[in-house]
Amino acid sequence: MLTVSLEQLEDFIHRCLMAVDMPDADARTVARLMAEADLSGSDGHGVFRLPQYVKRVKSGGIKVRPNIHVARDHGAMAVVDGDDGMGHLVMRYAADLAMAKAEESGIGWVGVRHGNHAGPAALYARMPMQKDMIGIYIAVGSANHLPPWGGTELLLSTNPIAVGVPAAEEFPIVLDMATTVAAYGKVKTAAQRGEQMPEGWMMDKQGKPLTDPTRAAEGFLLPIGGPKGYGLALIFGLLAGTLNGAAFGREVVDFNADSRTSTNTGQLVVALSIEAFMEVGVFKRKVDEVIRSMRASPTLPGVDAVRVPGERSQRIRIEREASGIPVHPGLADKLDALAADLGTIVLGGGD
Amino acid sequence: MLTVSLEQLEDFIHRCLMAVDMPDADARTVARLMAEADLSGSDGHGVFRLPQYVKRVKSGGIKVRPNIHVARDHGAMAVVDGDDGMGHLVMRYAADLAMAKAEESGIGWVGVRHGNHAGPAALYARMPMQKDMIGIYIAVGSANHLPPWGGTELLLSTNPIAVGVPAAEEFPIVLDMATTVAAYGKVKTAAQRGEQMPEGWMMDKQGKPLTDPTRAAEGFLLPIGGPKGYGLALIFGLLAGTLNGAAFGREVVDFNADSRTSTNTGQLVVALSIEAFMEVGVFKRKVDEVIRSMRASPTLPGVDAVRVPGERSQRIRIEREASGIPVHPGLADKLDALAADLGTIVLGGGD
Repeated sequence: MLTVSLEQLEDFIHRCLMAVDMPDADARTVARLMAEADLSGSDGHGVFRLPQYVKRVKSGGIKVRPNIHVARDHGAMAVVDGDDGMGHLVMRYAADLAMAKAEESGIGWVGVRHGNHAGPAALYARMPMQKDMIGIYIAVGSANHLPPWGGTELLLSTNPIAVGVPAAEEFPIVLDMATTVAAYGKVKTAAQRGEQMPEGWMMDKQGKPLTDPTRAAEGFLLPIGGPKGYGLALIFGLLAGTLNGAAFGREVVDFNADSRTSTNTGQLVVALSIEAFMEVGVFKRKVDEVIRSMRASPTLPGVDAVRVPGERSQRIRIEREASGIPVHPGLADKLDALAADLGTIVLGGGD
Repeated sequence: MLTVSLEQLEDFIHRCLMAVDMPDADARTVARLMAEADLSGSDGHGVFRLPQYVKRVKSGGIKVRPNIHVARDHGAMAVVDGDDGMGHLVMRYAADLAMAKAEESGIGWVGVRHGNHAGPAALYARMPMQKDMIGIYIAVGSANHLPPWGGTELLLSTNPIAVGVPAAEEFPIVLDMATTVAAYGKVKTAAQRGEQMPEGWMMDKQGKPLTDPTRAAEGFLLPIGGPKGYGLALIFGLLAGTLNGAAFGREVVDFNADSRTSTNTGQLVVALSIEAFMEVGVFKRKVDEVIRSMRASPTLPGVDAVRVPGERSQRIRIEREASGIPVHPGLADKLDALAADLGTIVLGGGD
């Protein structure tokens, strides 16, 4: 198994993006965010996506020199038009704007249209935490895998939410979740590994449990809590998509099947300045207390400990900072092929 | 079965609240909101709660002449201190402030501390819609019934969220949901009716399904989507409770068991001015399109139609506007006893 450092991974991504004509500084920003995703264990949302992004750039679905700009601006809110740029760049821009607005107004709510897939949701919920703010990120997913509750037509995506809440001595709480029981990436992984899925992940069009991931195209994902998860996916789509003038429902372009058409991806990021609500130190110590009360609470038989959202990711991050980021052989092969195609050095190859 | 008009119900509640010394205008505001809950089918959150509220007023847990005031105010956000007033009054005040801020800044985010149980979440998500705004309401529930995922200690409540999104010709989308599979009221109702609960609602401390609602005290509610619903309940508690200086986790007072102690209930309401994002008519027609695409989509065998959140409540509202609000005999008896106790006329009695 190939293992690389954060710097090696970042350097590889940076070179690949430069090779498709992305400006140096932008390529570096995207490379840092993508490598950060791998470092934190979001293996399906980091460098794994690079071949697809490059294909999209080459096919015209992503512009490497977009005119990312503020389309609407009113007080504490704004809508950013990403002009079909890399999702990471558009969201970095939107999160910075949300934080500036939160400094001014206590809260900043910035919607995005004409964005693109931007990696793991947690990246953008984490950004405001660096300024002692709470971050919220909601996105319209980049392909529809979910029907409305009781229906069979794929009108909704896994529309995820992420929220980051800073603590004092404890690691921050970072929730990052799809509104479906399983994200579609987990279905793909099960198929790759030849494993069956548990009941409850997917259903077929007759309403029967679907457990064979190779038959995924015959069915659909199930929302958390049945009609409740459907309701959340619907509302998140309206807030992150429709309200920003971005795609939602039938308008969503499947970015796996189509690399050319503008996806008009919708996202939103909210920054809440803790200082506006109360003394920052007091709040963070309160969050510590909450985390400790959860973690110290008694468990069900067979459960070793209660966890808080973000703990697993934080543990992986510490491990990988120390021992490097593993790159599975299948992915390493794909990245080698990409490097050959782009004429860049291979991952971990050095100069 | 007793059936009353909206006006009769409102008048009854108004008189009862006046009888415990609530000022006329406040009693009228609360009566209108409570009766509105019954009209819209939130039977467990309307007049059903009146005896408990009255008991709480008499025991000192709710002040009838509170000093509801803005404790923090910065740009687009504020924190309202409800001074242990009736939850409905505190939330009415907070929602008005959020709307005023949204008119100014595009968005208004108002947190509440020292509130009280305020009836169904949908009431407050609906308010901003009257001004062509999207409304969001999140609350810390008034008793803990949920452990963290994998745990057995009741550290969390059903912390609900409601979101209201206005449409043009269609009824608005109004999501109103607990972060647990079943709200605790549904457990109580099952117990009253001598019915068993389906598996998935509750679990006992050994991790076994609990289906007998009379044994509810031996177990706990289950969150939607397992760890995801736990994550949402935790985040909602931090946002609506901790951030506002309100109770969360171990601090939550069970308002069923204790009518005297200040619950320091935390809530938040967000108003988003659609106009700041895009032309209001365009947005509402887009929402119509989304609703129609959901409703016209094919269904699973045995499902008559796909619905959108808020449809059931809207249907009940129309029925009850035409034929009156049914009051179950058990509840009618309790309300008669309350009227006798307070020396007011009985429900539906007229002057």
